[in-house]
Amino acid sequence: MQIKNTAINDLNSGLLLDHEENLKLLSKKHQNLEQIIDVIANYNIAIPSWALGAGGTRFGKFGFGGEPSTLEQKIEDIAVINTLTKSANAISLHIPWDIPKDPEGIKATAEKLGIQFDAMNSNTFQDQEDQEYSYKFGSLCHTDKSVRDQAVAHNKEVIDYGVALGSKSLTVWLADGSNFPGQLNFRRAFENTLSSLKEIYAHLPSDWKLFIEYKPYEPNFYSMVIQDWGTSHMLAKDLGEQAYTLVDLGHHLPNTNIEHIVATLMTRGMLGGFHFNDSKYGDDDLSVGVIKPYQLFLIFNELVFGMQNNPANNPIPAWMIDASHNLKDPLEDLIQSIEAIETAYAKALLIDQKALESAQLKNDVASAQRILQDAFNTDVKTILAEARRRNGGAIDPILAYRKLDVRNQLIKERGMNSSATGL
Amino acid sequence: MQIKNTAINDLNSGLLLDHEENLKLLSKKHQNLEQIIDVIANYNIAIPSWALGAGGTRFGKFGFGGEPSTLEQKIEDIAVINTLTKSANAISLHIPWDIPKDPEGIKATAEKLGIQFDAMNSNTFQDQEDQEYSYKFGSLCHTDKSVRDQAVAHNKEVIDYGVALGSKSLTVWLADGSNFPGQLNFRRAFENTLSSLKEIYAHLPSDWKLFIEYKPYEPNFYSMVIQDWGTSHMLAKDLGEQAYTLVDLGHHLPNTNIEHIVATLMTRGMLGGFHFNDSKYGDDDLSVGVIKPYQLFLIFNELVFGMQNNPANNPIPAWMIDASHNLKDPLEDLIQSIEAIETAYAKALLIDQKALESAQLKNDVASAQRILQDAFNTDVKTILAEARRRNGGAIDPILAYRKLDVRNQLIKERGMNSSATGL
Amino acid sequence: MQIKNTAINDLNSGLLLDHEENLKLLSKKHQNLEQIIDVIANYNIAIPSWALGAGGTRFGKFGFGGEPSTLEQKIEDIAVINTLTKSANAISLHIPWDIPKDPEGIKATAEKLGIQFDAMNSNTFQDQEDQEYSYKFGSLCHTDKSVRDQAVAHNKEVIDYGVALGSKSLTVWLADGSNFPGQLNFRRAFENTLSSLKEIYAHLPSDWKLFIEYKPYEPNFYSMVIQDWGTSHMLAKDLGEQAYTLVDLGHHLPNTNIEHIVATLMTRGMLGGFHFNDSKYGDDDLSVGVIKPYQLFLIFNELVFGMQNNPANNPIPAWMIDASHNLKDPLEDLIQSIEAIETAYAKALLIDQKALESAQLKNDVASAQRILQDAFNTDVKTILAEARRRNGGAIDPILAYRKLDVRNQLIKERGMNSSATGL
Amino acid sequence: MQIKNTAINDLNSGLLLDHEENLKLLSKKHQNLEQIIDVIANYNIAIPSWALGAGGTRFGKFGFGGEPSTLEQKIEDIAVINTLTKSANAISLHIPWDIPKDPEGIKATAEKLGIQFDAMNSNTFQDQEDQEYSYKFGSLCHTDKSVRDQAVAHNKEVIDYGVALGSKSLTVWLADGSNFPGQLNFRRAFENTLSSLKEIYAHLPSDWKLFIEYKPYEPNFYSMVIQDWGTSHMLAKDLGEQAYTLVDLGHHLPNTNIEHIVATLMTRGMLGGFHFNDSKYGDDDLSVGVIKPYQLFLIFNELVFGMQNNPANNPIPAWMIDASHNLKDPLEDLIQSIEAIETAYAKALLIDQKALESAQLKNDVASAQRILQDAFNTDVKTILAEARRRNGGAIDPILAYRKLDVRNQLIKERGMNSSATGL
Repeated sequence: MQIKNTAINDLNSGLLLDHEENLKLLSKKHQNLEQIIDVIANYNIAIPSWALGAGGTRFGKFGFGGEPSTLEQKIEDIAVINTLTKSANAISLHIPWDIPKDPEGIKATAEKLGIQFDAMNSNTFQDQEDQEYSYKFGSLCHTDKSVRDQAVAHNKEVIDYGVALGSKSLTVWLADGSNFPGQLNFRRAFENTLSSLKEIYAHLPSDWKLFIEYKPYEPNFYSMVIQDWGTSHMLAKDLGEQAYTLVDLGHHLPNTNIEHIVATLMTRGMLGGFHFNDSKYGDDDLSVGVIKPYQLFLIFNELVFGMQNNPANNPIPAWMIDASHNLKDPLEDLIQSIEAIETAYAKALLIDQKALESAQLKNDVASAQRILQDAFNTDVKTILAEARRRNGGAIDPILAYRKLDVRNQLIKERGMNSSATGL
Repeated sequence: MQIKNTAINDLNSGLLLDHEENLKLLSKKHQNLEQIIDVIANYNIAIPSWALGAGGTRFGKFGFGGEPSTLEQKIEDIAVINTLTKSANAISLHIPWDIPKDPEGIKATAEKLGIQFDAMNSNTFQDQEDQEYSYKFGSLCHTDKSVRDQAVAHNKEVIDYGVALGSKSLTVWLADGSNFPGQLNFRRAFENTLSSLKEIYAHLPSDWKLFIEYKPYEPNFYSMVIQDWGTSHMLAKDLGEQAYTLVDLGHHLPNTNIEHIVATLMTRGMLGGFHFNDSKYGDDDLSVGVIKPYQLFLIFNELVFGMQNNPANNPIPAWMIDASHNLKDPLEDLIQSIEAIETAYAKALLIDQKALESAQLKNDVASAQRILQDAFNTDVKTILAEARRRNGGAIDPILAYRKLDVRNQLIKERGMNSSATGL
Repeated sequence: MQIKNTAINDLNSGLLLDHEENLKLLSKKHQNLEQIIDVIANYNIAIPSWALGAGGTRFGKFGFGGEPSTLEQKIEDIAVINTLTKSANAISLHIPWDIPKDPEGIKATAEKLGIQFDAMNSNTFQDQEDQEYSYKFGSLCHTDKSVRDQAVAHNKEVIDYGVALGSKSLTVWLADGSNFPGQLNFRRAFENTLSSLKEIYAHLPSDWKLFIEYKPYEPNFYSMVIQDWGTSHMLAKDLGEQAYTLVDLGHHLPNTNIEHIVATLMTRGMLGGFHFNDSKYGDDDLSVGVIKPYQLFLIFNELVFGMQNNPANNPIPAWMIDASHNLKDPLEDLIQSIEAIETAYAKALLIDQKALESAQLKNDVASAQRILQDAFNTDVKTILAEARRRNGGAIDPILAYRKLDVRNQLIKERGMNSSATGL
Repeated sequence: MQIKNTAINDLNSGLLLDHEENLKLLSKKHQNLEQIIDVIANYNIAIPSWALGAGGTRFGKFGFGGEPSTLEQKIEDIAVINTLTKSANAISLHIPWDIPKDPEGIKATAEKLGIQFDAMNSNTFQDQEDQEYSYKFGSLCHTDKSVRDQAVAHNKEVIDYGVALGSKSLTVWLADGSNFPGQLNFRRAFENTLSSLKEIYAHLPSDWKLFIEYKPYEPNFYSMVIQDWGTSHMLAKDLGEQAYTLVDLGHHLPNTNIEHIVATLMTRGMLGGFHFNDSKYGDDDLSVGVIKPYQLFLIFNELVFGMQNNPANNPIPAWMIDASHNLKDPLEDLIQSIEAIETAYAKALLIDQKALESAQLKNDVASAQRILQDAFNTDVKTILAEARRRNGGAIDPILAYRKLDVRNQLIKERGMNSSATGL
């Protein structure tokens, strides 16, 4: 299904009066409001192809009606989100869950719907039916060269799919690791991984980037080959200038200061990508901003600073939502995640950077704290709404989604028991 | 398949000389050795019916050959373990994964193989195909009474199955909770759960026990209705004298002092059951003793003390292994887990309790530490071997398992692609 | 030093126009605004006597000028905070750091300054110079009855001081525990503690409350006798109706769902007191709201619900700030903490409880999330300012504090090297 | 006081018969026993000058009798430990707690007692009385160049002291960081730190090494400038070939896989130093091996592998105990720590590396686990005793320490209320 612009306009019209009053008030208080609206209006976050279906845990998965069962339907779902939010103009494809059998056709479909192809994602953490070797004991790190070769070949194939679709980057997330002390030799695993990555890197087109994700645990529960940003960074430096580290918010040990890692990577120009989600315990993959919105704001503070002060030429990171949606309608969930990301971004843009720097240089800690909190405590709903409105999106996207009865229409189209590929 | 006693005797005979020498030496050093061998020889740990197949994570599951696909085959697998270790004479059944369609027949099969029926486990964390209401938003805590009634009825049914099989207890583990702040009202959820549990408790035969498990997170990642031992204990006290708390080693927040919880519960006579596994990060469900064997020893120190000094009449806890086996042959894994448990138990029995008490009363911390560590550093392999040998088990069960080529025989019997119910 | 009302009025007058405009706008959007302002205006948080000096870590302590070196000066400092914020009308006394040598005189001083005496705090975690027995190996839990008797006597003395001053409650925080496995016997320690507490409880006037604090670690790093709310609750139930659990935000293991604990305690009428601070790693004792303001908001959501729906007759908890102030002027720090607490409280009061309940009953998770976040994202600065203004306090207390140059005046009065008792 | 060799021989003689029998038995079972005894006999761990006094927490410190109050007495204490254990032939000096006013004299004293000077430690986390600028807001990272200069100068001075004493390395541990979000700019802090370190590095003699310690938190509770090994490694690479990372076991977030970090650093030849202690919650600084002896064993497994397989030319790490001793006699505590370290080392040396490699290459996980656990479960007390005995040390050092009544003699010499510099 597609949402018509007129439908959105109709819905907006009822909210416009209030919105404009709020906007006027806000602009009186914040001189750089126009600029902030502009930044938000131009901001887009990629949606992964596996986020449109029911995610689950090892204890089970609860489906819902109208799940997209083809890649085309997934792209349609993203277009629905994008039409409402004007902030989700790209899909991040997962292979082999979403192999584009007809790349040209898919590309055309996506283009018609205004959707681009962001970073490609390979998968060497599951066995596929037709696969010769198993990844039970690792892929790029495996002790057996045949397994490594198979995993390398898969990654090259994913790059090739990406080239056909117009993507410009590959994200490698490895589940490789061990569950039991003694199971693997850390050094051998590291060196095998590095050498496998070198082969993949060699296949990378010159205008592509390679993002190396890290994770301390899960699905392996004793060690993960790329356990932290230090290891990812070490690998990226060894590979070459097209390799970067990718930060996934959920991939950290308890209490990690993630914003500090972000700052360090940007200082060195090494932050390539960013996966958004939220969590309380581990890689919980909850919707963005539901547990620690202040941490997200502090991270955006570093991102804003890093993008505005960039001697090391850090590229604009590839932004993606990587949450799992078990209890909410995934489309509502993604809309709420987008809102949470943009809320944090807008608040970070409100920080008075000059005053902050001055307080920092004087070690006036109370003032520095107040500057951050004043920005954080500002209600930026109107900024987001205005950014969307200017692009033709909905002032209140969740409200619009419900008023337009999208889910029921999708159920009508696709049935109650359709099922998406993915976790 | 079944292992013959003669086969074990043959395998033992080659190891006997060394073993007897070791035993002689050990008995010179430890005066109470006979007593310890006796305790270990009489110790048994239940095997859950879901531990015989390939467990997995949300990222996937790697199967293996010869998985048991019926309840009968699962009981046979446990009998194999028991024949080798003489320490696994019971199965803990999970309903509905392993509904005994013919309870009498199953009971007879089990009896023939020397296997009893330990605590029954209900499941209200997954939806079954024929189920009227979904547990997507909880079961015993659900806002809708119809869902609660269905979950209560299921638990009663599980009790009935258990009565038919000769079990004497029900373990209730609830996944109930929430992923998002605001999703549920904590008080309402608690009170619904208590009232549901009361209905289940009312159905309990007078010689049964009810074990209430707790867990801080997973599969819900914001809150769990029974998040800690304090909540479980509160519920158990409200229910009555047949209700107890069950401790699963993996169900704790980082750094929890579990042995302290064990001691507190036993002080009040409230420790009903115990699920063994090991973990580094969360509920990793690794084989017992692979990450924190010293913690396991400290826990057994409390268990031994609690069983030997028992004014509050704590029952002997129901012991069960609750690990997930993704990378090892599950039977080898369970044998290794049993060895790890008995290793910790035997070491705890070696602690000089009088000397320890005396050091504690004088606050001679260095001595107290030394007493524990001397016991822990003792090699108790021979004690375990002797306990098994006396019961007709294998001196070296893993070696025996491999020499007898059990897995290949199971594959021959059941095929490469058989598949067990479970996680 | 004391701040005059006219000085505050002068400072307010410059901010009044903007403030009134903001207030008008806010009242248009929120129908129950008056009510919320009222609640905030009547809200007070106790300041502990040890929070006015430089706190530190084991690595050292950095002093600052104008520290209060007598109890009178500490009360004066709190009066400064209260004059500005109108939310800190009580002191929580720590014995023996702040023994009132002349209780009548101190009481009169405090009364003149509008300061009351909230919960008394005992200290059996440090040795005092004239003390007969050492608390090196514990106090209420000690293996030696003489030590326990001394600790019990100290607590009784603290109650007596409190009676003289008009306090109505005693907070017992025990550092008792162990650093090394084997050091103490958990059961004996628990039973000694319970029996000591019973003696203290017996000395409690009938209109007093006893608050039992819990903490998982520090200063003992293996075990703490009262490690969690479950243990505190067990002790309180054993003591009787005047005993309650006290929650200190920093006293939890990583990732603990504190708001859930708060809800459980209030469900049973057992939440007696509340210590505010913030932390990222452990008991970091940072100013309130600097790390996890959303968690604080969720906690207040439970407190508001619990106070508005109170069949178990939970008393209004004793509120206290318990933060350590190493880098900021402690008075500024406490003012910022008060603002953070009231911010969370005001936002929690903005939650549409009826809409939330309705969403919860329908398991409309996305709506429930939105209702919480809408409240949280509202800027409540104006509500706090108005609540203060109506009571004669400062619209912007930090600004007032700086404009009035309080710290320099205190330095002039007390010198650069005065030093307060405390941690 | 000094312990005479004859005294040790006398004490050993009573234990010799049993010891030799145990040794004979062990040598029958382990062919490479002689080699292992040799390695242990040649192993030494440095004792820091601050470990001989009573350490404490922010809540207080409990002294004990006979504390060394001069550097000479500290060296004497280490000599006592070394005479008993023959494994502590070096002191690691902390400046300014232990400034050698007469370097030549101190050097001679130490030499006479057989004690060398290991890594020097600087201190820019506390203010000293005569200091011009405060480190309240950092040292090498400070926003004010004057403060940085002062901290750099201090480090150069520490190097100079070290040169005079014959030390060959400097350990830099920085407390620099922040307690409050916004307090410092991460990038500026990092770059200031790097540039300060460069100045210190330039002062380093060509045969010296620089060790950069990392720590995630404490005493700063929001951010630490060198928060993890990745940051330390980045700095070391920037400085040059004499710079290395130093691992302190307590300086990690919950659940960190430290052995994996050790392996990664050794793979790159970047592990310079190692601080031993144990902990359950944070940087608890408990005696080695009391909480997680299996983790220590796994770490030694990596160290042994890294030292035996060393293409990247990792230097032999500088070993030091860094524990704090609040409840035990510090000398007993250090002896127990040494025993725990050597126990882990000896067990790691017992691992059958060839069998392990073979199991790893076949992904025979159960065997790999068994190989590690067989080594870990071996009682190596006799190996340690024999290594000590051959060097003239005590078969049972704690027993000897008590029989020789060392503490009481120290109290006689130094009094009950002597007090050491340090934390």
